[in-house]
Amino acid sequence: MRIGVLTGGGDCPGLNAVIRAVVRKGVAAYGHEFVGFRDGWKGPLEGLTKPLGIAEVRGILPRGGTILGSSRTNPFKIDGGVEKIKANLAEQGVDALVAIGGEDTLGVATKLNDLGVNVVGVPKTIDNDLNATDFTFGFDTAVNIAMEAIDRLHTTAESHHRTLVVEVMGRHAGWIALHAGLAGGANVILLPERPFDVEQVATYVTKRFQVEYAPIVVVSEGAHPLEGQMALQSQEKDSFGHVRLGGIGQWLAEQLEEKTGKEARTVVLGHIQRGGTPTAFDRVLATRFGLQAIDAVHDGDFGKMMALRGTDIVRVPLIDGTGELKTVPLSRYEEAEVFFGS
Amino acid sequence: MRIGVLTGGGDCPGLNAVIRAVVRKGVAAYGHEFVGFRDGWKGPLEGLTKPLGIAEVRGILPRGGTILGSSRTNPFKIDGGVEKIKANLAEQGVDALVAIGGEDTLGVATKLNDLGVNVVGVPKTIDNDLNATDFTFGFDTAVNIAMEAIDRLHTTAESHHRTLVVEVMGRHAGWIALHAGLAGGANVILLPERPFDVEQVATYVTKRFQVEYAPIVVVSEGAHPLEGQMALQSQEKDSFGHVRLGGIGQWLAEQLEEKTGKEARTVVLGHIQRGGTPTAFDRVLATRFGLQAIDAVHDGDFGKMMALRGTDIVRVPLIDGTGELKTVPLSRYEEAEVFFGS
Amino acid sequence: MRIGVLTGGGDCPGLNAVIRAVVRKGVAAYGHEFVGFRDGWKGPLEGLTKPLGIAEVRGILPRGGTILGSSRTNPFKIDGGVEKIKANLAEQGVDALVAIGGEDTLGVATKLNDLGVNVVGVPKTIDNDLNATDFTFGFDTAVNIAMEAIDRLHTTAESHHRTLVVEVMGRHAGWIALHAGLAGGANVILLPERPFDVEQVATYVTKRFQVEYAPIVVVSEGAHPLEGQMALQSQEKDSFGHVRLGGIGQWLAEQLEEKTGKEARTVVLGHIQRGGTPTAFDRVLATRFGLQAIDAVHDGDFGKMMALRGTDIVRVPLIDGTGELKTVPLSRYEEAEVFFGS
Amino acid sequence: MRIGVLTGGGDCPGLNAVIRAVVRKGVAAYGHEFVGFRDGWKGPLEGLTKPLGIAEVRGILPRGGTILGSSRTNPFKIDGGVEKIKANLAEQGVDALVAIGGEDTLGVATKLNDLGVNVVGVPKTIDNDLNATDFTFGFDTAVNIAMEAIDRLHTTAESHHRTLVVEVMGRHAGWIALHAGLAGGANVILLPERPFDVEQVATYVTKRFQVEYAPIVVVSEGAHPLEGQMALQSQEKDSFGHVRLGGIGQWLAEQLEEKTGKEARTVVLGHIQRGGTPTAFDRVLATRFGLQAIDAVHDGDFGKMMALRGTDIVRVPLIDGTGELKTVPLSRYEEAEVFFGS
Repeated sequence: MRIGVLTGGGDCPGLNAVIRAVVRKGVAAYGHEFVGFRDGWKGPLEGLTKPLGIAEVRGILPRGGTILGSSRTNPFKIDGGVEKIKANLAEQGVDALVAIGGEDTLGVATKLNDLGVNVVGVPKTIDNDLNATDFTFGFDTAVNIAMEAIDRLHTTAESHHRTLVVEVMGRHAGWIALHAGLAGGANVILLPERPFDVEQVATYVTKRFQVEYAPIVVVSEGAHPLEGQMALQSQEKDSFGHVRLGGIGQWLAEQLEEKTGKEARTVVLGHIQRGGTPTAFDRVLATRFGLQAIDAVHDGDFGKMMALRGTDIVRVPLIDGTGELKTVPLSRYEEAEVFFGS
Repeated sequence: MRIGVLTGGGDCPGLNAVIRAVVRKGVAAYGHEFVGFRDGWKGPLEGLTKPLGIAEVRGILPRGGTILGSSRTNPFKIDGGVEKIKANLAEQGVDALVAIGGEDTLGVATKLNDLGVNVVGVPKTIDNDLNATDFTFGFDTAVNIAMEAIDRLHTTAESHHRTLVVEVMGRHAGWIALHAGLAGGANVILLPERPFDVEQVATYVTKRFQVEYAPIVVVSEGAHPLEGQMALQSQEKDSFGHVRLGGIGQWLAEQLEEKTGKEARTVVLGHIQRGGTPTAFDRVLATRFGLQAIDAVHDGDFGKMMALRGTDIVRVPLIDGTGELKTVPLSRYEEAEVFFGS
Repeated sequence: MRIGVLTGGGDCPGLNAVIRAVVRKGVAAYGHEFVGFRDGWKGPLEGLTKPLGIAEVRGILPRGGTILGSSRTNPFKIDGGVEKIKANLAEQGVDALVAIGGEDTLGVATKLNDLGVNVVGVPKTIDNDLNATDFTFGFDTAVNIAMEAIDRLHTTAESHHRTLVVEVMGRHAGWIALHAGLAGGANVILLPERPFDVEQVATYVTKRFQVEYAPIVVVSEGAHPLEGQMALQSQEKDSFGHVRLGGIGQWLAEQLEEKTGKEARTVVLGHIQRGGTPTAFDRVLATRFGLQAIDAVHDGDFGKMMALRGTDIVRVPLIDGTGELKTVPLSRYEEAEVFFGS
Repeated sequence: MRIGVLTGGGDCPGLNAVIRAVVRKGVAAYGHEFVGFRDGWKGPLEGLTKPLGIAEVRGILPRGGTILGSSRTNPFKIDGGVEKIKANLAEQGVDALVAIGGEDTLGVATKLNDLGVNVVGVPKTIDNDLNATDFTFGFDTAVNIAMEAIDRLHTTAESHHRTLVVEVMGRHAGWIALHAGLAGGANVILLPERPFDVEQVATYVTKRFQVEYAPIVVVSEGAHPLEGQMALQSQEKDSFGHVRLGGIGQWLAEQLEEKTGKEARTVVLGHIQRGGTPTAFDRVLATRFGLQAIDAVHDGDFGKMMALRGTDIVRVPLIDGTGELKTVPLSRYEEAEVFFGS
């Protein structure tokens, strides 16, 4: 068989580990051939390819990003997109595709598979907000980077008797904030799933100062206060229409400074959470996803996506990669709340 | 309630995270009091205690080791040991114990619980060889440390066209070798579960040199060759009867040097795998174990041990912490083997 | 002798290493006694003390921040400040002070020493902008943290064909940007010492895209474009009068996006550069400063400050810690420029 | 000009940074061409080359090892070696060589330069034992790796009330032990420069246990006890004539266990000290050495070697790279000794 591989959406530590595992096992165990498509669905759409064999995947396991490049191109939003993809796959002699990506990438994969293209999917979301799998790769790396930043900020907070607000990734789901906050010993953790009361946050912060231990507040970029508490939306975009750095984090630091009478500072971790070398957890998970994906292709088991259940890698319908978000359940948040008050 | 806490067996990153979670929730949510027992079962046996409250657990989350100290003391091997423990617990006014430890510590916990002492257990094994739980804390940290060492060794191996043998922990189960080897891109991984053929290993190594990519061999300290291939046992102990550093690793490097004609070197990671700050995964898992443990104590649900199943923390019978080892199944080893040949 | 110790100004990895060395050698070699003053000059001003002996400095070497706390209090700006300090020192029986801090802290130290208070200084500036010494501690840690962030951002930049602008500390001197940029393989480095031409920067960035290697631009927070190129000052402060996160970095990313036609993103490293555990270089330098400082006190050699010259720790007049800034010389910038064009 | 580049001797973090700087500046500033010679002096001796241009040095700055490979081949020990080198250089059209290496490599460089080959040298020794320069690259990385290992071992030592002996690199000079020991808060540091009294070491260790703070002993691989204290030489080699892992470290741990009555364990850091990504200090130093080296070539200033003096990179005679070892002076050891007793 000749198999195409592509990566779509935001980059995520572990993408290269998936690519490598697919190719290494595909060649060694099954004798398949591979072709890389560049920049997500843009690759098969525009016929942009890259050689992909044992030599090309040598040494990429510890590297972040993706050697294939990525984009957010959606062929279903382009006139004749599907036909172009089919034509390019035919021209390349590609029998099947391994598509590695998030909700959007897998949504395209699902539809293409329904339209007769042989696709196997590997889920990728640094936010860990996918119902079908216990964890996605990239998440563990992001949490560790955020935790290490929080570890560093503790000593600054203590030495200066300051509040430090750490804004982490997570527009719709607070998994990174929850895990990094738990791991980093945060005083308060604020998630998109649960509007927060800024007065209550200020009370927690004050309480922490009273025990002479300066507070760290971890906040998801998508968290927001109770209705009526924030009236700064107009300032949240700059003259280019970009969201300003330090949206909710900076707003919160200002509020806390005012309400607690203690200096507050914000750190927005941003892109350093998603780049660079993956943790062992993510390298192993991504590798196992890749191995299972090439097995699925070899078995002709298309329309499937890889998932982690307990310690097993299983295959689930591709459509499961595009459904409802896995948000942080109340029980997990309450578990963490016990640390807020002291 | 007044609750005693102790840690037994080899140290493991995450022990302090458990202690902290137990105390923080115990005080904040339930108003319990705590007393620390020093050095595992030696503490209640000899009445060695340590104050344990919110102040004592402040700042210990990121610290490796255990603030309570540890030992391998077994009260059932000491005359009147159980009676002494009961007397000391009574004297301290202790209603229940949280025992954090491995097979030996939990074995004692099980027996004491049967004899009427209220005990809740938290499992700890850096080797991840416990059937009752998907993962134990400390394992992820050990794997990451080993992986980082392997990452470093790659460039030396390549620059000098040398084989590098990395000996990692794991006397009876090869989980650390398997995961660190997968994550580090090892050429060959050797486990206690499966005697290896040193000729086959030499063939793998030679193949890797042929593609101009120097090989890393990851070997569990408990791995051993096929019967008859090793005749060095007499040299494995030094004049003090201690096992020499570089047992199987050094032997293997010598064999590979001879059989492949390429220089080989050994690195024995040893104790650096078990010390120091835990990863985020281990801090979160240990914290969640601690939270569930104090809930179990509060519920009067004694004789139970905490376990991870998928993403849930559940309570299982204490006895499950002391049963058969969870060794690496053949399927997981075969999964990894696909990388050996190329 | 009875010796007071204080730390002033912004926190900096290595402060605790200085305190520890002063106390360890002071007690072990000379039999002196110590008292800690809290929060910089606020401590002696208001008589805020903290016990300081061997026990208190145990285990603090690897910890960031300062166990004594810090502040920017200046006793010369407070009515009767000097008299209060003298009175409090007398009351505490303090014969001499070790003051660890930056320009402001050492400025106070210099004046107090002239007024008859026995002071020895240890210089501290994370920005490395002190003429009297080859390096200051904290700088190496900050550079490593920034470099690791840049390492991580490379893979994101490449995978997404994006420019990444990394804003690092340095209001008046560009040492962190220069060293982190050199170490991180930046495409362009922009410093406060040299107004930049945004058109030239865009040309460099475009050139890097042409060789299919996405650019990283490292910019000091205090860097600024040629006169007339930036007209956004009014937006640089928020409603609280705080400088917005992403000042120059965000502005530059927007400019580059517009001028190059390639997406650009900003990361502002902020406080993570100054917290957390020090590197070996900083621990050794801080320790050696501390050892030399207590020797100076013991010798009665007051009015002096510690400095690194080559591999030696020497004593120079305290006043040298408060003079002209050591900015990046043109020759060092030109050295780096050779990497910009390709 | 057409310039050859080679790396010889043991690998060292920063070699690739030198190669990259030489090539980047050579091409961009001077328009020179380059050819890489493989595996040290073996390359020009046997005519083994590798293309070396901007593309080849892309992305190698953060990588350990050397993309050119290394060996210990000495052409002066081979019949007609010099003539072969001259012939191969002529055939390749090479006008000058940049030789990056330690004492042996630079010794060959010196002799060849005297024989009319145009050579510029860049010194490399992870041991930092070169008189001509304040520091060599690779040393800072090795010290940080050793320090991080020591940091990790502290918690194990404390939790188990054990002595931990850490054996670090340094056969003839104790710089790594001195700096890693100072940075890691070692209880005792033992160097090749100063035979140690094992009784005295045991006294220090016992003293540390008395203050309830478990001791870390850092020992250079080349350290040795006072005459007569060690009678184990015959056991130091295995059946292949290799030096056993854990030579002095393991011996010392056994002695300390016996003399102090406390368990002791050894960790031999070995090759992980010399592989992997360089620290910022080493990347900057190596880059600056490379920039100065290509300037020297361009200037026709042959027979020189690069050196760090304070914050300047200067050129010194090549012969300075091969003279007397820079060992740890007594004053630096005494500086550290103040921490041993408590």
